[in-house]
Amino acid sequence: MNEKDLRTLFDKVAGGEVSVQNAVEQMKLMPFEDLGFARIDHHRELRRGFPEVIFCEGKKPDQIVAIARGIIESGANLLATRCSSEQFESISPSLPDAKYHDDANLFIVEQTPVEIKGEVAIVSGGTSDRPVCEEAALSAQFCGCGVKRYYDVGVAGIHRLISSWEEIRKADVIIVVAGMEGALAGVVAGMTSAPVIAVPTSIGYGVSFGGFSALLTMLNSCAGGVTVVNIDNGYGAAFSAALICRKIYNREVKD
Amino acid sequence: MNEKDLRTLFDKVAGGEVSVQNAVEQMKLMPFEDLGFARIDHHRELRRGFPEVIFCEGKKPDQIVAIARGIIESGANLLATRCSSEQFESISPSLPDAKYHDDANLFIVEQTPVEIKGEVAIVSGGTSDRPVCEEAALSAQFCGCGVKRYYDVGVAGIHRLISSWEEIRKADVIIVVAGMEGALAGVVAGMTSAPVIAVPTSIGYGVSFGGFSALLTMLNSCAGGVTVVNIDNGYGAAFSAALICRKIYNREVKD
Amino acid sequence: MNEKDLRTLFDKVAGGEVSVQNAVEQMKLMPFEDLGFARIDHHRELRRGFPEVIFCEGKKPDQIVAIARGIIESGANLLATRCSSEQFESISPSLPDAKYHDDANLFIVEQTPVEIKGEVAIVSGGTSDRPVCEEAALSAQFCGCGVKRYYDVGVAGIHRLISSWEEIRKADVIIVVAGMEGALAGVVAGMTSAPVIAVPTSIGYGVSFGGFSALLTMLNSCAGGVTVVNIDNGYGAAFSAALICRKIYNREVKD
Amino acid sequence: MNEKDLRTLFDKVAGGEVSVQNAVEQMKLMPFEDLGFARIDHHRELRRGFPEVIFCEGKKPDQIVAIARGIIESGANLLATRCSSEQFESISPSLPDAKYHDDANLFIVEQTPVEIKGEVAIVSGGTSDRPVCEEAALSAQFCGCGVKRYYDVGVAGIHRLISSWEEIRKADVIIVVAGMEGALAGVVAGMTSAPVIAVPTSIGYGVSFGGFSALLTMLNSCAGGVTVVNIDNGYGAAFSAALICRKIYNREVKD
Amino acid sequence: MNEKDLRTLFDKVAGGEVSVQNAVEQMKLMPFEDLGFARIDHHRELRRGFPEVIFCEGKKPDQIVAIARGIIESGANLLATRCSSEQFESISPSLPDAKYHDDANLFIVEQTPVEIKGEVAIVSGGTSDRPVCEEAALSAQFCGCGVKRYYDVGVAGIHRLISSWEEIRKADVIIVVAGMEGALAGVVAGMTSAPVIAVPTSIGYGVSFGGFSALLTMLNSCAGGVTVVNIDNGYGAAFSAALICRKIYNREVKD
Amino acid sequence: MNEKDLRTLFDKVAGGEVSVQNAVEQMKLMPFEDLGFARIDHHRELRRGFPEVIFCEGKKPDQIVAIARGIIESGANLLATRCSSEQFESISPSLPDAKYHDDANLFIVEQTPVEIKGEVAIVSGGTSDRPVCEEAALSAQFCGCGVKRYYDVGVAGIHRLISSWEEIRKADVIIVVAGMEGALAGVVAGMTSAPVIAVPTSIGYGVSFGGFSALLTMLNSCAGGVTVVNIDNGYGAAFSAALICRKIYNREVKD
Amino acid sequence: MNEKDLRTLFDKVAGGEVSVQNAVEQMKLMPFEDLGFARIDHHRELRRGFPEVIFCEGKKPDQIVAIARGIIESGANLLATRCSSEQFESISPSLPDAKYHDDANLFIVEQTPVEIKGEVAIVSGGTSDRPVCEEAALSAQFCGCGVKRYYDVGVAGIHRLISSWEEIRKADVIIVVAGMEGALAGVVAGMTSAPVIAVPTSIGYGVSFGGFSALLTMLNSCAGGVTVVNIDNGYGAAFSAALICRKIYNREVKD
Amino acid sequence: MNEKDLRTLFDKVAGGEVSVQNAVEQMKLMPFEDLGFARIDHHRELRRGFPEVIFCEGKKPDQIVAIARGIIESGANLLATRCSSEQFESISPSLPDAKYHDDANLFIVEQTPVEIKGEVAIVSGGTSDRPVCEEAALSAQFCGCGVKRYYDVGVAGIHRLISSWEEIRKADVIIVVAGMEGALAGVVAGMTSAPVIAVPTSIGYGVSFGGFSALLTMLNSCAGGVTVVNIDNGYGAAFSAALICRKIYNREVKD
Repeated sequence: MNEKDLRTLFDKVAGGEVSVQNAVEQMKLMPFEDLGFARIDHHRELRRGFPEVIFCEGKKPDQIVAIARGIIESGANLLATRCSSEQFESISPSLPDAKYHDDANLFIVEQTPVEIKGEVAIVSGGTSDRPVCEEAALSAQFCGCGVKRYYDVGVAGIHRLISSWEEIRKADVIIVVAGMEGALAGVVAGMTSAPVIAVPTSIGYGVSFGGFSALLTMLNSCAGGVTVVNIDNGYGAAFSAALICRKIYNREVKD
Repeated sequence: MNEKDLRTLFDKVAGGEVSVQNAVEQMKLMPFEDLGFARIDHHRELRRGFPEVIFCEGKKPDQIVAIARGIIESGANLLATRCSSEQFESISPSLPDAKYHDDANLFIVEQTPVEIKGEVAIVSGGTSDRPVCEEAALSAQFCGCGVKRYYDVGVAGIHRLISSWEEIRKADVIIVVAGMEGALAGVVAGMTSAPVIAVPTSIGYGVSFGGFSALLTMLNSCAGGVTVVNIDNGYGAAFSAALICRKIYNREVKD
Repeated sequence: MNEKDLRTLFDKVAGGEVSVQNAVEQMKLMPFEDLGFARIDHHRELRRGFPEVIFCEGKKPDQIVAIARGIIESGANLLATRCSSEQFESISPSLPDAKYHDDANLFIVEQTPVEIKGEVAIVSGGTSDRPVCEEAALSAQFCGCGVKRYYDVGVAGIHRLISSWEEIRKADVIIVVAGMEGALAGVVAGMTSAPVIAVPTSIGYGVSFGGFSALLTMLNSCAGGVTVVNIDNGYGAAFSAALICRKIYNREVKD
Repeated sequence: MNEKDLRTLFDKVAGGEVSVQNAVEQMKLMPFEDLGFARIDHHRELRRGFPEVIFCEGKKPDQIVAIARGIIESGANLLATRCSSEQFESISPSLPDAKYHDDANLFIVEQTPVEIKGEVAIVSGGTSDRPVCEEAALSAQFCGCGVKRYYDVGVAGIHRLISSWEEIRKADVIIVVAGMEGALAGVVAGMTSAPVIAVPTSIGYGVSFGGFSALLTMLNSCAGGVTVVNIDNGYGAAFSAALICRKIYNREVKD
Repeated sequence: MNEKDLRTLFDKVAGGEVSVQNAVEQMKLMPFEDLGFARIDHHRELRRGFPEVIFCEGKKPDQIVAIARGIIESGANLLATRCSSEQFESISPSLPDAKYHDDANLFIVEQTPVEIKGEVAIVSGGTSDRPVCEEAALSAQFCGCGVKRYYDVGVAGIHRLISSWEEIRKADVIIVVAGMEGALAGVVAGMTSAPVIAVPTSIGYGVSFGGFSALLTMLNSCAGGVTVVNIDNGYGAAFSAALICRKIYNREVKD
Repeated sequence: MNEKDLRTLFDKVAGGEVSVQNAVEQMKLMPFEDLGFARIDHHRELRRGFPEVIFCEGKKPDQIVAIARGIIESGANLLATRCSSEQFESISPSLPDAKYHDDANLFIVEQTPVEIKGEVAIVSGGTSDRPVCEEAALSAQFCGCGVKRYYDVGVAGIHRLISSWEEIRKADVIIVVAGMEGALAGVVAGMTSAPVIAVPTSIGYGVSFGGFSALLTMLNSCAGGVTVVNIDNGYGAAFSAALICRKIYNREVKD
Repeated sequence: MNEKDLRTLFDKVAGGEVSVQNAVEQMKLMPFEDLGFARIDHHRELRRGFPEVIFCEGKKPDQIVAIARGIIESGANLLATRCSSEQFESISPSLPDAKYHDDANLFIVEQTPVEIKGEVAIVSGGTSDRPVCEEAALSAQFCGCGVKRYYDVGVAGIHRLISSWEEIRKADVIIVVAGMEGALAGVVAGMTSAPVIAVPTSIGYGVSFGGFSALLTMLNSCAGGVTVVNIDNGYGAAFSAALICRKIYNREVKD
Repeated sequence: MNEKDLRTLFDKVAGGEVSVQNAVEQMKLMPFEDLGFARIDHHRELRRGFPEVIFCEGKKPDQIVAIARGIIESGANLLATRCSSEQFESISPSLPDAKYHDDANLFIVEQTPVEIKGEVAIVSGGTSDRPVCEEAALSAQFCGCGVKRYYDVGVAGIHRLISSWEEIRKADVIIVVAGMEGALAGVVAGMTSAPVIAVPTSIGYGVSFGGFSALLTMLNSCAGGVTVVNIDNGYGAAFSAALICRKIYNREVKD
């Protein structure tokens, strides 16, 4: 129930079409989100622009298919992350329009072309971080961001990073993906004026502790302007980057 | 040495004013940042808009005074965070223009008025988080952001948060400050389309582990759009928020 | 040996039917619980109302069958938790009356109908927490509690929780099941006057640390009235809830 | 705005006293909790029976006095926990009716006598746990529970516990307070049919890790019926115990 | 109530001196340990040989004095560990017979000379471990063990250990006290046929983690025959060593 | 080179059979253990009584067979722990005399009958701890100790422990095996005068942390007389117990 | 672009062959490492002596083959570590010159004979550490170091270590490989004047925590001269050792 | 007893001055290091070049004075680390020749001038790491190394590091000191062919965990050639660096 519905109800009460008793009952029985939470509805309205997402890890193929079909039938685009190739093989026949991206462990159903605005740079240190990078890259595109990839520019050979710098610093948001020592995020942030979102990866062994060491490094970054998401959470970084891009390109200026 | 300097040097070589040998020597002897790293210089140029910052914790009063004077003499505004009232008492006579903010443990020397653009909402759960909130708020203002405060709207009484929601969701960036369980960040992110920067605080006891529990909660947030900074790092969140605001209000549109 | 048995023994000694020497020997040789620990016996008497439970994880099929048969032969109802479908397949032929609940990983042999009193609400944030929820739900029913399920009402979309609130708050005890950030328990507790028992689940990745993060969140809950059990311990929560319900509905009033 | 208010508004709209436009505006402008969230209001109504509580740790004396006066003026009883004797000395002149309990680090202002119903047993292992025990005991009384203390009955001398057992098991709820190894909670739960709330304490040294070891022990308890609160959280345990007692003694029977 | 008492009671019942009703009441009202728990009594009898011990840390001087006086009046010897020199200064006037050992942070009141049997070797790596060593040494003597000290024979200079080996290996039990890396316990155990009790100490910095690293080293010892106690728990090691010595020198041979 | 060899060398030098220069060279070139480290040799002599042990985990079948044959050929008895049934199947044909104990994951080759002296009680809380218990029990027997088993007497039903107490306390050493909360060790130690060696097991889930929680509980034991070994290290506990038994039954009395 | 190139460019500008505008553009467009970063190039020059290395863990066979071929075609020697026998089986047909070392999980393609200088001692405590030892040994040889192996000389039998000491101490660098308690590194360092590089291994169980306990031991080493690498990082230790050997044998003396 | 003493003994035996029996007794009674452990003595001989060191933390002034005087009287130079200015004030009158270095918390007594050979670069990221840097620098000089300091060249402004690179890479060994994120070590190692010893510092807050985060970063370094010492262990790094320098400059070439 939005403001218009509310107004209609009042109109009917005023016009005698609906009794007071009946109006109160309608108010009481309506599901919560229809009770006039314009703010929440409006917020959902804003979010609707981002297509729906399924996190496949730990879900059975038929569960994924069922959720996916619901989203597809609503006409929305669909992104499904953390989907292994084994999972997708079972799913594929039921979702013929789904396009699987092997190097990102995700599939996409694009029913409406996505309008691209803004630019997100994906910067990573090692080739092993590629699946997380690609999850971030494809998720950002899915949310309407342009994406440029700068892979394998880790701190162990800092000159590679520096030689791409002119390009990287043009991005609206920079997503830095790094495992092992995770030092890349701080180095990048020290060189740029763009917000940096850091994604620690579970790549490493011994005291990398499945990405925890890289996470700590990123949170401790001496350089300002670094914020961090959960280990391997490429999608999460892309989603936050997309929220920022949307603010940049859709804003109604207030100044 | 920027492009213009480089051009001048080439002009002089072309004009015979400087010998080739001499030009090469000039190139070799120049400090690195003068060697033509336009990218880095340019980046510093961009960053220069943000006033300099001193992290006072663990520094002796005379060290702080020395660094502060250097910055002040350069004409820049100055922000000094994590400065206890004891520290400031010793510093104060030497820095007569410094304004101390008791509830944020920081002082500011504002030599040039800061132009305010954009709006950062500071949302916090408990009154004990106030020093971190105020560090974030005053730092954001120092970096040129408008700030609105929504304190004491924690999840233990979720209706307080909801009643302020219409206001909060207008912000360009939302900084959520929370200790103890740290659940507020995820709840806020679930209701908004603005990027959320979460600051865990060290408020709590027992298994709050000095803010580590709140940090984990925030990194594990089910709702997308949450990125996280180090425990109690109000300044860091504000700096990232300011980078985003700058992108929003200063961008040269690319679409 | 209860008080009556003791009295009988004394009677026989007084009546000369049993010699002093023989009585002392009887006292010494009796198993401990027969030595007059009426309190423990009585306590067992009280507990007897709850059917026996087998924790199957790590047990071999024949071990489970052997224990199960012992319980069944005693006439009691039987609950067996943490039983994988593989385990149950091996067990099933030997326990023809066992009913397996696939979504809760448990089986039940109900020889005597359970009388239902009171109401336990099971509230959960995500669909992945379902097995723990169902373990809690079926265990609570097994212990004689009415159960109502409120699944998928997590804090990432707080309005879903609020819209069910009128219903949830009628419960005698609320069990909140949540993984990832685990924030739901505190939010629920902030809205209710019923005791809340929180069950962290191992759902999540990265710094969810197998449920440890959710556990910490719940223990740090700002809202009073939350107590916590081990990760994934749906049965434990249900058992505690059932103890509370029993106190509510069976109490001999003392006021 | 409750149902009655809503009905009145509709009546006025129906009667033409309030225009539809005006009614809609009233709905929109009203603070959230007045928008008809009867559930939340009602819930607050239910909770009102419990007096207000201040957590003093980390608060300055004048902050405590200000909050305390607000509560006292509202006519409510007041409990202030984690108040050191140093803090209370500063506070005392401003709060002449406050009664300090030295062994529980809390003070109480009782303006209305508390009606006592039900019985909470406080069981503890060592004399060093006394402050947490007393915080639990006085908090439970403050919330209207009768309290019986069974201190120094730890597992290192299990016979002491057994000899008090007949008494302990009569309680409606048992709060077990233990540091070091924390084993007492499981032993007590194994002997009783009352719900057990376990409070780990920070008493210990070495690998007691400030109570973390005791917390783990309690969460791992083999005996069912144990739920756990944060380290040293005597008040939290008492509050949960009081919620249970209230359910027992105030319930409107549903069977 | 021991077997004799029980027999007497039965005799009186048999003789009619005590009615059955009265006998049952006597049984019920008697404190637990009088109910015939000969095993527990007997066990206490056995333990009585070891003098009583007070753990002073966290206790107030008057509490220590009160407990100490109770023990002294019972005629027993008294050991009070973890007593700082500040604490002892306050205590000293009230306990004129207490002898303080500055280097072990403990005091002793010896009312009955202790008979010494067996030999405990205290082996330690560094001079900083001395307080824990001396707590172990004096506690072992207090429990009736002969003690020989081998300090400063750490693995960083393994030849020092080897040169004392002929002596060390004569001990009945070896207590190894070590901080930092804690390697000494395994080295000693590899050279001996005596049981080794390892005490990690909190000496160290950085990743010694307050003794946790040494504890892990000792638990991971490749050499068999090492058992471990809590960090800095010199008394605990001595108590276990004394139990072993008692078994060796007091045993009634069964072979 | 033992004392006799040394004496012979001196004799030859004295008799002129060996020149001084030659004797010095002999001393210098001899391998270390032949240089007269009677203490080490003697220690090995003492240890020889305990048969050799192979830790099979992570070893390939042919490696195990090779080591085992070496030991068997030396005439010693052989114990091989942590040997899975899969491993033993591969090994079995090559070691026809090896007797596998399925419930302890170990095999034994007994070439010389072991003389049994003393008594070790193995006390455990849950049936799942059985493999660790049996490893301890069979290892203790292998080292010449008599063994009595008291399984399933955990603290969740403390009366079961108490009813076996009279028996348990007769042991020379008590090994307590417990997972989950690990509280049993402290309870047992509080009731006995025998040294208690505690073995935490990896049984449990959630915050049992693979036995770490039980380990902490045991190290924090309030009751004196508990020493601890690594998680699941049944053999280690047995070996230490055997060292103690040997001291008890083989000692040359010094008093 | 090196100094010569730069000089040439200046010459052309001076000679009018290249216009100033054109020269500036050339400077701007050149890749970073061509801009005259002699220091970085020189550094790469220095490092070129060490053959290239592939870390195979987590890489697919075709990825490994592709990278390997690139290196081989460049004429360099190739070391590929952490390559399982399964991986190598798939790789082998495509890399016919690769020699697999089963006990080190690595393969090598040696196209140019390596010149050996210096001596690295590999000292280890247990046979289970062998794969890490061999990774270190073969990597060190691959980098041009002579290698001597001293395996199975752990602290549990310290005399074995001592008897090899005369030999070990001749090495230029000593790599100590140890799991479990990790004490060996400190013992070795206490006996030598060579730098010791310690490699903790993941060998162990229970509180070895996958090598973390050994790592802590090594970092806490009382004996000076120990530095540490990541768990199981045999290659890393060898690489550092080779850097030291190169410094020793290739240095241009400065004194 | 060195080789000469041994020879003398044999001479006397050969000459009949000492009986065989007597010679054997002499051998048995001699302290271990006199038994002819030329290897150990020789090793000590080698180490003697490095002056003695006292770790003052936790030592009382008179203990420090006593140890220091012993060393001074032996004629050696003395280094005493971790000595607070308060400690030194008490010590100073008794050690008039001690020179305190305020910014390194250490004092030195130099009785013999140290000969300087080789060059150690100390590279650090932040000004707060200065005390650890200076401990490393002065310790390295004390051990005979030349030292060059490169402070405040952290990764947050990577160009500062690069501009000093030409200088840094000339060092024989590079010690990198860094707190917070600790990324500097890997960046430096990626640019050099010198061995890098990394010292994490306890500088930081929140999840820097007292230097643990920096330690993990350094151990996880992607760039080869980094070895690590304990947190804040500047002396340890310097000692290892000095061992390497000694190998470089004192070696008797083997090639």
